[in-house]
Amino acid sequence: MPELLPALADRRARRAFDPRPVAPAEVELLYRAVSVAPSHGNSQATRLLVAEAPATRDALIAALNEGNRGWAAAAPLLVAVASITTHESNPRNRDGSEREMWAFNSGIATGNLLAQATEMGIVAHPMAGFDEPAVRAVFELPTEVRVLVVVAAGYPGAAESLPEDLRGREDAPQLRLPVEILVAHDRWTAENATTFREYRERGGASR
Amino acid sequence: MPELLPALADRRARRAFDPRPVAPAEVELLYRAVSVAPSHGNSQATRLLVAEAPATRDALIAALNEGNRGWAAAAPLLVAVASITTHESNPRNRDGSEREMWAFNSGIATGNLLAQATEMGIVAHPMAGFDEPAVRAVFELPTEVRVLVVVAAGYPGAAESLPEDLRGREDAPQLRLPVEILVAHDRWTAENATTFREYRERGGASR
Repeated sequence: MPELLPALADRRARRAFDPRPVAPAEVELLYRAVSVAPSHGNSQATRLLVAEAPATRDALIAALNEGNRGWAAAAPLLVAVASITTHESNPRNRDGSEREMWAFNSGIATGNLLAQATEMGIVAHPMAGFDEPAVRAVFELPTEVRVLVVVAAGYPGAAESLPEDLRGREDAPQLRLPVEILVAHDRWTAENATTFREYRERGGASR
Repeated sequence: MPELLPALADRRARRAFDPRPVAPAEVELLYRAVSVAPSHGNSQATRLLVAEAPATRDALIAALNEGNRGWAAAAPLLVAVASITTHESNPRNRDGSEREMWAFNSGIATGNLLAQATEMGIVAHPMAGFDEPAVRAVFELPTEVRVLVVVAAGYPGAAESLPEDLRGREDAPQLRLPVEILVAHDRWTAENATTFREYRERGGASR
């Protein structure tokens, strides 16, 4: 009987990190996981921006939203996922309009990184709560390079190291939409349009 | 010594399918892989649109670009990955501008599906070459629902079943950008801006 991949099933966006640096061989595998991600037309337009120098780390942490700054500063590995938007060859609809693929490609690449991290017992927590112009200034990015997430990563730490309001969230059960809402068969239904909040508020059972 | 996850390393966008339908328990695991994907603010705004009825399949195949129509029609499982753009709570920059996350979230979810498929020995080939208005008409999607990829999936078939021009691409080696181009340390460099085409044309060695 096949199972859900542990690298997907066991991923949690935890916030408590051990201060030990991630082993170089494992960091290299996170890079490789991103490099093998598919991209439309094989554009390979995703890049990883690693904050290593203390001044870079401080500036990147300062660019995060306040809610992320406290816990993410303890992560030994901070990586922004960047996209060179001009490297994409966007698909066209029949009316000539284009569909941008860079954000989608960035998502697949980031998912690969998260799966590889999870497989190695590394917490990798993607954050979208930051000021993008500030992050772009930190790494001196040209205008065509965009950043949608910054990933805080490291070996798991003790939940006790976190402020009390975050502690309980480390291993909170993950409520997920049931297949009836997630999947449409042949035709969109009103059920598919249910928001996660609506589902949760009507007491949707965890799967 | 840790290794790159086979579910990531062994993924190939193959085009030859066995006609056998994918086992229901495995289809269910593809759904679950998508359901556990992270999303900003846990929006869970990604949906899967499965073409099951012959008329739906035919209409979806007709919406694909000509280059995809031939081989993809043989895939027993055709799934469009959709995003309810209005379900997202987009992060804000300090100047008040918003960053849209739906395409990124769709990418992570699709990557999870591809990894789970690969793990189970299922070929899952994401296509961006299609007419989005036509795909949206097939599933009767409301205007706020967008589709960036359609995935053709099934057990692997014989390359001989493909037209000659596609046959050789089934197991062609995957050339990937080296880490020197993929990763920036503290600061963006001209090397990071290399396009994949430039890298290939200067004879970049496969890793």
